[in-house]
Amino acid sequence: MSANEPIRAVDVIRKKRDGGELSRAEIESLVRGYTDGSIPDYQVSAWLMAALLRGLSRAETAALTDAMLHSGQVMNLSEFACAKVDKHSTGGVGDKTSLVLAPLVAAGGLMVPMISGRGLGHTGGTLDKLESIPGFKVDLSPARFRAVMRQCGCCMIGQTAEIAPADRKLYALRDVTGTVESPFLICASIMSKKLAEGIDGLVLDVKTGSGAFMKTEEDAAFLAELMVETGERMDKKMAALITDMDQPLGQRVGNAMEVEECLDIMRGKGPEDLYELCIELAAWMFRVGGRARSLGEARSLSEELIRSGAALDKFRQMVELQGGNPDALDDFTLLPRAKRYVEVVSTVSGYVTAMQTEDVGTACVVLGGGRERKEDSVDPAVGIWLHKKVSDPVAVGETLCTIYYNDDARMARAKKLLRGSYAIGDSIPPAKKLVRRVISKDS
Amino acid sequence: MSANEPIRAVDVIRKKRDGGELSRAEIESLVRGYTDGSIPDYQVSAWLMAALLRGLSRAETAALTDAMLHSGQVMNLSEFACAKVDKHSTGGVGDKTSLVLAPLVAAGGLMVPMISGRGLGHTGGTLDKLESIPGFKVDLSPARFRAVMRQCGCCMIGQTAEIAPADRKLYALRDVTGTVESPFLICASIMSKKLAEGIDGLVLDVKTGSGAFMKTEEDAAFLAELMVETGERMDKKMAALITDMDQPLGQRVGNAMEVEECLDIMRGKGPEDLYELCIELAAWMFRVGGRARSLGEARSLSEELIRSGAALDKFRQMVELQGGNPDALDDFTLLPRAKRYVEVVSTVSGYVTAMQTEDVGTACVVLGGGRERKEDSVDPAVGIWLHKKVSDPVAVGETLCTIYYNDDARMARAKKLLRGSYAIGDSIPPAKKLVRRVISKDS
Repeated sequence: MSANEPIRAVDVIRKKRDGGELSRAEIESLVRGYTDGSIPDYQVSAWLMAALLRGLSRAETAALTDAMLHSGQVMNLSEFACAKVDKHSTGGVGDKTSLVLAPLVAAGGLMVPMISGRGLGHTGGTLDKLESIPGFKVDLSPARFRAVMRQCGCCMIGQTAEIAPADRKLYALRDVTGTVESPFLICASIMSKKLAEGIDGLVLDVKTGSGAFMKTEEDAAFLAELMVETGERMDKKMAALITDMDQPLGQRVGNAMEVEECLDIMRGKGPEDLYELCIELAAWMFRVGGRARSLGEARSLSEELIRSGAALDKFRQMVELQGGNPDALDDFTLLPRAKRYVEVVSTVSGYVTAMQTEDVGTACVVLGGGRERKEDSVDPAVGIWLHKKVSDPVAVGETLCTIYYNDDARMARAKKLLRGSYAIGDSIPPAKKLVRRVISKDS
Repeated sequence: MSANEPIRAVDVIRKKRDGGELSRAEIESLVRGYTDGSIPDYQVSAWLMAALLRGLSRAETAALTDAMLHSGQVMNLSEFACAKVDKHSTGGVGDKTSLVLAPLVAAGGLMVPMISGRGLGHTGGTLDKLESIPGFKVDLSPARFRAVMRQCGCCMIGQTAEIAPADRKLYALRDVTGTVESPFLICASIMSKKLAEGIDGLVLDVKTGSGAFMKTEEDAAFLAELMVETGERMDKKMAALITDMDQPLGQRVGNAMEVEECLDIMRGKGPEDLYELCIELAAWMFRVGGRARSLGEARSLSEELIRSGAALDKFRQMVELQGGNPDALDDFTLLPRAKRYVEVVSTVSGYVTAMQTEDVGTACVVLGGGRERKEDSVDPAVGIWLHKKVSDPVAVGETLCTIYYNDDARMARAKKLLRGSYAIGDSIPPAKKLVRRVISKDS
């Protein structure tokens, strides 16, 4: 092939199929052609399968991320002098740290332009949680987004059509062609969207365990390292925490209930594991944003911003600016509430030795708190309060969890899942660390 | 998944992606859904890539062949008591044995319902060669096909829309998604078409060498064994010959010129390698059809059918029945003839040590004897006469080959290719066997 001939999609497919390393131009040609419609779905899906099975090199992963990122608009926040940072989680059950982190880190003097997603499979989504606050809007215009950022330093919105359109198209195709489960493609999908925020630094919360997409710590670490390296190749300050998802995070699962739990945390109350993870992630956000000289200093700053009420004040300001009713943050009766509740009680005594965390997430979806089909609407009121978690002692007749529900048939299905999700044995299981590993050039 | 739930294409893709073995029902569901349009191209192309990279088991290959075969009509020739046999070649340069074999084997008392293809890439196609006989029709109706079979025992036609429609659709998709080069998919494509002929036995001529699609003998043997086993699983008598394609077969390449060479063979003349291969393949066709008690007996029968003129008579009968002018078989000036010719002469002396056989085939395509694009028409008159082949001595100024052409610019391109295709050295290269290996339960 001469240098002047156009790159043919079939040749790019064949090269990857045979294990070759694609050039930046070849990857750009594929992504551009797919985005503008000149390369059809059937060629891209063959390429995706070849990429999944052959893998991508670090350079290919960075080139794919870059091409997807530049398929749409990249926010320019250079008018704001301070560092812009964000956090991304690979998804878990009861994983609600974003609602605490955005205002906390903004209260600490950095900017957090956070683009979030909706619930996916058994995992919850930040947008669904925020929308349980009456009036809260996640689909702001670019101008309004910029105005909110200027006024309070953080803003939480959904992905727009202008952000990484190649990713939207590729993600839909991967979903129906069995090409979701590739760390390389996952990395490019996540990073292309996050880097479109125009940030300087990013902290990744890569979940591992029975409630995570990456069931093993090795898989989680592989993905985390890939994303850190990809970000660094694009001159971003990066850190990744591999964190436990062998049980839900915190005690509450369900949209409005998770908002309440976050407000508890911002008031210095709430479950210890959630508080600890918020502090760790906030500390790393301050580190990648250059806001603290050490991790210790960054942790102290994070704790102080909660203790002083600054994080809660910032959250209240953001909620008001995004159209939400701030009174609901103080009076939880203004948040959506389920009509009925039922307790799941233990029939044996012992200790909770493990939880089938994915089933807890699925139970919440079944109640209506997530989507079984993309077009489903979400019931913000329903959810589960986990009174018992791993290592807790349990007596016969004691409540394991409470189900808040609006529909009897859904409750029955959820109850069955929740009962099965608790493993109860004779002895306390070995303790697991919440933060399993940190991947960063920093410390 | 319960047994009552329909099979989802995405689950079939994922199972193959992860190296699992698909059930017959899963493969049938995929092929049926693709043929009726309920499964889109983009899912099938992802599956094809997974199948290419993960491979298929023998059972999966047979199930795929069977599903593709039954996507259309299977001829029922049970009204004819004798055995129905055929031969299929994987394609080569100067590979013209079908024109001799169909009438020869029919003259020997078996029936040969032969569905052939057109030229593909650098290789020639039986249909293009037959159509160089004035009036010869390859698109007969099923009724006419059956009538020709009844009257003369053989008939040579093209694939119809009713034969293996799944293969037609899959082949077009594979061509543009980099999924052609899988022995499993090649096997299913070939065997589904051949078994639709309603035959009892099949002889495969699997080419290997510089002019074949399978460049190495190992790849050729793998494909041959796969096709033999697939046919045997479907209760067909099978044999495969791995034969040399390190140089063109016979001396002539080009549609009408190849018809002439076949007529020479049927008259007991013509090049030795072509004669030898026709006798070997015919003998194996008689063996799989149960027409001879040993291979030796089958060879003697084949030679006698040429010597006696019975093969030529049968060819003449078939040509007449399919609308061709039988006078052209005796008077070659009635066949298409190129307007001009030019000789390629050697500038060195020595021996022909090797030939770039694919380039010889490409030279014929360039002259107009094959298709550079699918929609191209073929010039039946043009071609190449190879005066020198591997091991022949060559003197300075001696003619290597003669180009018969109708267009000066095309001739110039072909001449360059042909000059480059001859390697001339100081010593005779080691002799290679024409039939490298035979794969059969028989002997």
